[in-house]
This record gives sequence, structure tokens and C-alpha cells, in this order.
Amino acid sequence: MFRCGLSRLYKGLSRPTGHIVQPIWCSFPRSLVLSPQRRIPDFNSFVGRTNTCGELRTSHLGQEVTLCGWIQYRRQNIFLVLRDFQGLVQVVIPQDESAASVKKILCEAPVESVVQVSGTVVSRPPGQENPKMATGEIEIKVKTAELLNSCKKLPFEIKDFVKKTEALRLQYRYLDLRSFQMQYNLRLRSQMVMKMREYLCNLHGFVDIETPTLFKKTPGGAKEFVVPSREPGKFYSLPQSPQQFKQLLMVGGLDRYFQVARCYRDEGSRPDRQPEFTQIDIEMSFVDQTGIQSLIEDLLRYSWPKDKDPLIVPFPSMTFAEALSTYGTDKPDTRFGMKIVDISDMFRNTKIEILQDVLSQPQGTIKAICIPEGTKYFKRKDVETIRKLATDQFNQEILPVFLNANLNWNSPVAKSIMEEQKLELLRLLEIQEEDMVLLTAGEHNKTCSLLGKLRLECADLLEARGMVLRDSALFSFLWVVDFPLFLPKEDNPGELESAHHPFTAPHPSDIHLLYTEPEKVRSQHYDLVLNGSEIGGGSIRIHDAELQRYILATLLKEDVKLLSHLLQALDYGAPPHGGIALGLDRLLCLVTGAASIRDVIAFPKSFRGHDLMSNAPDYIPPEELRPYHIQVSRPTDSEAEKSSLNHPPDPEN
Amino acid sequence: MFRCGLSRLYKGLSRPTGHIVQPIWCSFPRSLVLSPQRRIPDFNSFVGRTNTCGELRTSHLGQEVTLCGWIQYRRQNIFLVLRDFQGLVQVVIPQDESAASVKKILCEAPVESVVQVSGTVVSRPPGQENPKMATGEIEIKVKTAELLNSCKKLPFEIKDFVKKTEALRLQYRYLDLRSFQMQYNLRLRSQMVMKMREYLCNLHGFVDIETPTLFKKTPGGAKEFVVPSREPGKFYSLPQSPQQFKQLLMVGGLDRYFQVARCYRDEGSRPDRQPEFTQIDIEMSFVDQTGIQSLIEDLLRYSWPKDKDPLIVPFPSMTFAEALSTYGTDKPDTRFGMKIVDISDMFRNTKIEILQDVLSQPQGTIKAICIPEGTKYFKRKDVETIRKLATDQFNQEILPVFLNANLNWNSPVAKSIMEEQKLELLRLLEIQEEDMVLLTAGEHNKTCSLLGKLRLECADLLEARGMVLRDSALFSFLWVVDFPLFLPKEDNPGELESAHHPFTAPHPSDIHLLYTEPEKVRSQHYDLVLNGSEIGGGSIRIHDAELQRYILATLLKEDVKLLSHLLQALDYGAPPHGGIALGLDRLLCLVTGAASIRDVIAFPKSFRGHDLMSNAPDYIPPEELRPYHIQVSRPTDSEAEKSSLNHPPDPEN
Repeated sequence: MFRCGLSRLYKGLSRPTGHIVQPIWCSFPRSLVLSPQRRIPDFNSFVGRTNTCGELRTSHLGQEVTLCGWIQYRRQNIFLVLRDFQGLVQVVIPQDESAASVKKILCEAPVESVVQVSGTVVSRPPGQENPKMATGEIEIKVKTAELLNSCKKLPFEIKDFVKKTEALRLQYRYLDLRSFQMQYNLRLRSQMVMKMREYLCNLHGFVDIETPTLFKKTPGGAKEFVVPSREPGKFYSLPQSPQQFKQLLMVGGLDRYFQVARCYRDEGSRPDRQPEFTQIDIEMSFVDQTGIQSLIEDLLRYSWPKDKDPLIVPFPSMTFAEALSTYGTDKPDTRFGMKIVDISDMFRNTKIEILQDVLSQPQGTIKAICIPEGTKYFKRKDVETIRKLATDQFNQEILPVFLNANLNWNSPVAKSIMEEQKLELLRLLEIQEEDMVLLTAGEHNKTCSLLGKLRLECADLLEARGMVLRDSALFSFLWVVDFPLFLPKEDNPGELESAHHPFTAPHPSDIHLLYTEPEKVRSQHYDLVLNGSEIGGGSIRIHDAELQRYILATLLKEDVKLLSHLLQALDYGAPPHGGIALGLDRLLCLVTGAASIRDVIAFPKSFRGHDLMSNAPDYIPPEELRPYHIQVSRPTDSEAEKSSLNHPPDPEN
Repeated sequence: MFRCGLSRLYKGLSRPTGHIVQPIWCSFPRSLVLSPQRRIPDFNSFVGRTNTCGELRTSHLGQEVTLCGWIQYRRQNIFLVLRDFQGLVQVVIPQDESAASVKKILCEAPVESVVQVSGTVVSRPPGQENPKMATGEIEIKVKTAELLNSCKKLPFEIKDFVKKTEALRLQYRYLDLRSFQMQYNLRLRSQMVMKMREYLCNLHGFVDIETPTLFKKTPGGAKEFVVPSREPGKFYSLPQSPQQFKQLLMVGGLDRYFQVARCYRDEGSRPDRQPEFTQIDIEMSFVDQTGIQSLIEDLLRYSWPKDKDPLIVPFPSMTFAEALSTYGTDKPDTRFGMKIVDISDMFRNTKIEILQDVLSQPQGTIKAICIPEGTKYFKRKDVETIRKLATDQFNQEILPVFLNANLNWNSPVAKSIMEEQKLELLRLLEIQEEDMVLLTAGEHNKTCSLLGKLRLECADLLEARGMVLRDSALFSFLWVVDFPLFLPKEDNPGELESAHHPFTAPHPSDIHLLYTEPEKVRSQHYDLVLNGSEIGGGSIRIHDAELQRYILATLLKEDVKLLSHLLQALDYGAPPHGGIALGLDRLLCLVTGAASIRDVIAFPKSFRGHDLMSNAPDYIPPEELRPYHIQVSRPTDSEAEKSSLNHPPDPEN
């Protein structure tokens, strides 16, 4: 029998017995399988009901119950199906004259009205059991009923199979929240965070500390919302993370801090980003990189939902350089292969001029990925799409090689490659019959990025064509480590900027390079990647004030005055410390298999940052701005045009 | 032996054995009494140390330990006392030639430097034990030492007995956090909130749901900070509470919601208020007032610190009218008596003209409070202060009556009052020898407010003179109920405004009055009061859309368009619901006996809303405001003057 979700959410410590398929909009009746045994949380304390609708089983037979719920549907004025967050139950509408008033209430209330009924749990007549329904063996013989609130005509039906646009769902979020999937997502989120808190607070002595969100703009903090104060010209800002505060807490001797922290980032319009988001924010004193990694592995293992396979720790780890050369990205999706292979060595003595040229350049390489059964699955149009992507986005040529069932080559280059080389390629790329190979030549980083991108595109294409490449039940965690400490500035490559943030400590083996070749210094930053998404990042921090001053002032040319409080704090006995932040919305999105982070947030903003329900942000009369000493400056026409280019209209609106 | 604080914080489920005195700045060595038995939280996982400094006892004798901590002080280059959050331990500096490098490190590092030491736990030589120190029977024979970070000259010593101004403490908050008291306050806060979460989430099936803080300005929300968006003229606002969202969650079928919610209120400068604060926010469906009250009583009982006396539930309850007439306030401090007594009836036939006049007015009353031993403790100057307060703030005359050791009256009115009346007064006010009585005559509400104010003033004065009136270990909870639903508008008494908020449901017995005498309608609002401070408030909400529309549009004359999403939600099957919010900062302030809520917040703002450490809020260059289409409008001189009157300069600055 098909089972999912809420049933297991509240089963406490019971272990899953098998694999749970995670449908995006599974239907109510069959999905809510509740164990009849007593659950730990008491959902019926302090309220008028005696039971939830969804929990009733044959073990409740004969009991007098009072239920509160929404009318899901009604059949011929004989049956009514009542719903609460825990599931559905069938209510028998009394037909005898003496219960006329009860019948009237239950027959006249529109669907989605809220009613309270009292009655007896009875067996369904033989043959009328519904095995697809968790409560399908029983029904309620009603004695009294009360209409608690009537429902007007709805903008859409609260049935999981009824498809709605996301704009409609967001506009009527309070109705969308009644769906099984949103109930599951939000309840799972609550429980997973609770397990994390238990782990950190109760088992490992972390202190949950709230840090301010009305703070001061950080140097270069272009993505920080500002909040005008009542002092003319002075603004707070909403911080992107509690980074400074968590470091100051370490200086303050609160040596194990965590917070489920609200953070803010004003990036204009970005799909699948939110202007406010939540991170599990952690910092420890006297810790090294291994310590933080072990903590996070154990934390995730402990808080992992019981309806998933248990996590296996430790997670694999990979250097940034290796991630780039093997997967073309710093956040590899390691659920599948199709790794990038450097085949430069095979072509050292090639006659093909263009390849000769590339290999003679510094960092010139020839690389390839093998697309399993690509020859079989891909259409001509797919290959054209791939080549076009390479030229449009990377200005690179892609050479496809098609292999037939006998591993014969079908490619323009085939004749220029010796048989021996072909065999070597088959071996290196682990090529099988009907695979396709994509070859490219160019500078190392660029070819890696290109093939990394094509690897994901081809995976999507293969899955669209029916191949099962990425197991939806597989959670493939990966640490990426040894990032560079600095990167050349995009707009001025002669200068350096922090690859992550300026408080990241350099790798101990590279400290000497800070004063000679800072661009070669690796950092003690680490990223946690899950199924190709970055879900966390952190670092060991600089605790030496002199080193921090040198990096800020000399290497990054920042105004140290703006960070004087932090530098001063490092002077006064700052312990060595490090930490990490996990992106909670993204993590829950992956865990629940949701299509978007909006599906794991109760009241998300649209991708333009709008609340489609209340219509925030909104205009404010000038007199309400006066206490803040600001006024609106309408953009000129050309600015407005530019701004509308950056922010395309909300398709949801 | 004197014990307090951190020792018990981490003792898990052990019950307190006696009364804990709560010193505001108790000294480290004697206060950190740790039980040597194994605690549940492992403070040493994932880090370099094997133990905390403060946990070592004779049971650790012979163990090789590695400790990390701050140098608290050094004695004659022979002993060094190392501190971490859990306490102090004595380290013996080796004197032999072979350990010269260890000696050098430990003798040269300045106080508050961070060091790591490894060595053996040994007994102190007989006679050298320190019974005032939790670790006073042992010391560490050091083998190796490492200086982790050196400390520069501090702005103040990290010793609890060193007094600092609050401005200095806030400027160097990271140093102030090292004090025992701040460690205790923040750790207790974390644990108490964790217990609340366990209770709500694990035991009673509440769902922890995060609601947005970037929202839309509520009608009349004058105290809401605004946040400019990138769309010209459009603003988010930072909500004062998740009120709308929690009601929408009920409509969405998430029928037990809670959140430790960050809230924002821009009140300019108010002592002991913060622009951002935290509330335990709760909402339930299908609940009545009794249900919410029982929940909160049980929640507080469950999460109450183990080092305090257990709470006794249920809490007493009092109507608003009774609170006003007995204590002159809606948040009575019920730790002591001195209740207001109406003595009008005794004077119905009085010859005193002024009293006759008053009693002939509508609502005219004569009231009194008895100040225990006031005649003995109060000086002439005190009585003058009291009379001045009455005339200055209430435009009322106060008549003091002093009673001597024989209960003889010493007062100008004494001769106008008959002996019989005097005896009746003695009985009604429970007057004892050397008490003082304060009499006043006037309109009911005004005399109540005046005497309520004087009651508190006199209590402060009595305590300043040495009387013990309010037991600091006593936590006196009280429910105040049956508030009026509406109040006359202050600036236009012909119109009504909500006494609390417009979503509060009317009292069921008063609903008919809504359409005839709305000013007489009582509400289903309830406040929770602790020791005279309001620490929580909530209500049963309106779930009927028509009633909500009538109250908003007809009675309150609000623009219902701004709340159309909420009204619409009530149309679509909103369940009956209610909730409450507890002010976490205030609650913790009372529980820890802190002088101010700033002492239970890691990084508080000064009373002018400044972060004295980082200097927030701060100026922002105009180009950083441009993406938000706002510009600063400098106030004119007269406006600036007015503003500076409203916001006196920060005395802390």
C-alpha cells in the first residue's frame, strides 16, 4: 500500500520500514496513514475536540468523540467527509426525523465550512470499507453538530489534484496551506528544526542566542536593505547574516553559539531566492575545520527525517580544484557520474591544428565528458541546443562524438584520431555502446565550467527522455574544501577581493604566501553541497587582530574604521573560532522534494519580492515618511527603463 | 554554602534543594558550584579541550586534561587561574628548568589572554584548599602550554566586582559578556526557551512556523519601521507582531502554531524598551479563553527554571474592573497588599463640604490606601513628595492620616470624623499601629489610578527605608480579564478605538451591546501579569467575517481595503481561534532579577536605539540610497528642535 508523509511525521522514534515515495501533490485519503497507537504529542489538549479526524481507527470503536474540521465533500446528503490536518473521516448524516436539525446543518453547509460534530465511532457496514483511506474501516454516527463557520464560494477547490497557478496559490495562501503537501512541508520543517535544537542545545551545550537584525551597513554590503531611523540621515541595515555578532559572541566567551537566524538579502529579482531567509547559524571556539564538519554531519544525521533512509557519515570531501576539474563547478551533483576527463595527454602529438594551438597555450587543455546512451536518447535538435549553449554562453566549440552499438565512431574527428587513441579514450571515459562523447579544447577553468554546465543540461535532457539518472530518494552530501582565499576583482582583475568574506582564515600551510603571492593562498573555508546545491558554508575565522588588519587594509584595501569594533574585539583575547551556516529553506526544499523554496515557507514572496496576498511592498503616504526624514525620489524615465530591465514584470502577477 | 546559577543550569532534571539567592553580580569563584556528576550536554565534543575549567573536581584526580580558557589572574608567577564559561581552575606554573618555555608562556601572557594547557589534575597540598571555589580542592600540574591569543590592555577589568557604567559595558559588549551574570542570563534564556519549545512542539503538537518580517504597513501602524524596496515609492514594513499571519495560519488549517518571533516597534526613545524584541507567539484553533490560559500556565510551569521554586497553577484571575478598583492599574503587583478601599459609604452623611461635593458627582468616590508602618517610616519630605505627585500628575488632593502607637489619629480631618467612622475605617483598611492612610476623593477611575500610582511609590519608599515588602524570590502571576473592547479615542472621545486590536472578539454575553452601546462591550482579551509587569496578552479572535467588517468599518471607521486579505480569509471557512504572546525579554528580566531588559539581550540597543558598540544607526552615502529611490530630507530648524525634545540625548553616549 502506498504511504507517505504526515503519518510518519508524528510517530516519534519509530524507524522507517521502507522507502517512501515523495509525491508532490499526493491525495489525502490514501496518504494519511496514521498508526492507531498513542502518539507522543497530544493534539487534543486545551481544545474542544476529543480526537483528530485523521487518527480514528478500529481501536476507537464505540468511543464517543467530538471532532472539529472542514467539510471536504458530501455524498447524496448521506455521508460527509470531514478533514483536519491529520486526515479525513467519514461522517454519517442522520436521516431520522428527530435529528432533523443536525441533518439540516450538515446538508446545508457549503464545502470547506467548519463544523464540530459529536458522535460514536462505528464500523462501516461489511463491504463498504475503503482500504485507500486511513480511517476507511470506521465512520462516525453523529448525534450533534454545530456549524462553526460557513464558507463562501472558493477561488479554487482544496483538492490536491486540482492544479492551480502558483500566483493563485500565493494570493490565497491561507487556502493553499490546507493542502496535504504544504501541511507536510511546514510540519516537517518544524520537526527537523526541533531535532536540530535538541542536538545542539540539549546534547552538546550550545547556547541559542538571538542577535540583532537592526544593525549597521557592512563595508561593501550592497545587498543589505536599509531601515531609516528617526535621526535625520541615519539608517539601520538588515544584515545578511549574524557573522559579526557570532564572532563577537566567541570573544565574549559564549563558546558554543547557535541560532535559527532570519537573514536578509536584497538582490532585486532572483528566481528561487527570497528577500528574507533562514539559516542555522553556528559558531564554536577552540575548534578546527574537522570539528565543525563532524558536528554538522552528526547534526544532520540526528535530525534527518525518519521517513528517509538514514544518512551515512562522514560525508565525502573534495577540494575546490578537484570539484572544478571533475565536475566543472564548486557544487557538484554527485548523484551521477559523467565526470569531466582531461584527455590532453592523448593529443600531445596530434596533427589536428586547432588542438595543437590550444595545447600550446598556458592552461590549454582538451577535455571530454561521456553521456551514457546519449547516441540512443539524444535527437539532432538536442545536440544543436548543446552546441549553441557552448558558443553562446562560453564562446567555445563542442565536438560531439556518437558511438554506435559496435562502439564505432561517428564524428568528423574520427578519421583524425588513431585507433590506439580511440581505445585509450574508451578506457578513460568508460565509454559504452550508444554513448555520446562531448569534446572541447581551451583554457582549463573555462572548459571545466562549460563541460560542468553541459553535464547538468544533458542530465536534464536524458531524464526528460525517460532515463532514470538521479534517484529522488538519494541524498548525496559532499564537502568542498580548500577554496582560494582571494579572487581577482571582476571589474578590476589587478586587485583582490575575498572569495567568501574577509574574516576567513588562510590555510595554515599557505600563510607565508600572504605576503608574497596572496592570490595563491587557500582558505579554511568549507562548503556543504547536497545533490548539486550549496546548502551550507563556513570557515575557521581569523582571530589574530594584526592578520585581520593586514588582510582588510593592505590586501583588500577596505576602510578598517567601519570594522573597528571587530578588530578591537580581536585585540582583547579572542579565542580561535570557526563556524558554519546551513541554508534552512534550501535544505528543506531538497528534503521534501519541493519544486521551489516557496513550497517550504509559509508566506513566501514572489520572485519579484512581492507578497501576492497582502500586496506588500506598498505605497506609503508622505506624512508617514516624515518622521524618518526621507522622501521618495521618482526615477527619471531612463532610470525607470533600466530598472524595469533589471526587474522583469512578475509573471505571477 | 552560598550557591547560585550556572551550576544548576546544566544539571538537567535535578530539582532544586533550596532557595537560591540571585545576586546581580555575584563573584565567580564561589558561585560556580558544579556537580561533579556527568551532565547531559557534552561541552567538549568536537573541540580541542578534554574538559571545561569549571567542571574539575576530586573525581578527576589523576586525569590528563587539556583546558582552554582566559587568564583570570596570576599569583607570584607560581599560580595562574584559568577561566571559561563554567568557572575557574588553578594552574600550577612549573618552576623546573626543563619546563622553562611553558613557564615563560604562562608568566608573560597578559591577563585575559587565551591559553591552552595540558596537564594532570592533582590534589592541592593539605591546607591550601579553597572552600569558596568550586574547583578549590584540586589544581592542574601543567606539562604543556600554548598561547592562543594575547590580550591588549583592557578598557575595564573582567571582574564582577569592578563597577562599570552601562555605556562602557555596551560599548565593549563582547567583554561584558564574559561576566558571570551575562553568561548566566543568556544561558538561562536559551534553556528556558528550549523547554518551551519541547513543551509546545514535542508534547502538544504545535508547529513552529516562521512568518515574514518584511510585510505591509498595517492601518494606523504608526510605530512600524519602514523598509524601502527597489520599486519607487513602495515600502515594506517591519511588523509589530505576527498577528495577521498567525490568524491566516489558523484559516490555513495549521491549527496549533507557535513561533519565537522577532518583532519591531519604533517608539523613538523609551526607557527599557527595545526597537526589536522577542515574543513567544501562540495561536490555536477550536480553543476558548480557558484553554489558552491553561496552556500558558502549564507551559510556564514546565519551562520554569529549576533553581526557582516551582510555579503553582492555576494562576489567580481578576477582571479589569476589579484590578482598577483594587490596585488602580491593569497590571497589579500582587506581591503585596496596600489595596485601594472604597470608603464612600462611610461618608454619605458627612458634614465635610468638599466630600459632599465629590459624592454628589456621577462616579464620585472617596478612597483610601493604608501604608503599613508609614507613620513610622515616612519622613515629612516623603509625604510632601506624595502630595506633590498627586497634584502634579493627577490634579488631586491627598489627605494623609498618621496613626500613632495607640491608633490615635493625627490629621486635620480627625475632628470631622466620628469615632464610629474611625473604627469602621480601621476595620475596612485593616489599619495597624503606626500605619499611615492616604485618603482622596474624586471620580472613580481617576482616584483609582492615583492611589495605584501612590501604592507603588510608597512601596518603593518603604523598601528604600529598609522594609522588606516584595520578596525577590516570589513570582506572583495574575490573569487580568474582561477588558473593555473599545475605548474612547484620546484625541476625539466621541469616537471609539480598539482597546487592544481590532481582531479581538467581544465577550459572548455582550454581543448584543455592539449594536446599541458598543462602549460597554467587554472583550475576550486577557493579560498575563507578573509582579506588576504585563508579560503577555492575547485574545479569542473574531472568526466571523461580517462581525469583523462591522467592527472595522462601522465602529472603528477603518479603511477595510487595507485588510481585505484578512476579511476574505475569514469568508473561506475560518475556524474559531485565539492566542497569546508572551514578552520574552521582560519575562527573562523578571526571572533573572536583572535591572533592565538589556541584561537579558546579547546585543541590546541603548534607550535611544543606538548600538554603542558598532555605532548603528549610521550615515549612508546618497548613492547607496539611490536603488531605493529615497533621499534624506533634512528637517528644518524648528522640526529639529521638536525632534530633539522628543528624543533627549542618550545619557549613555
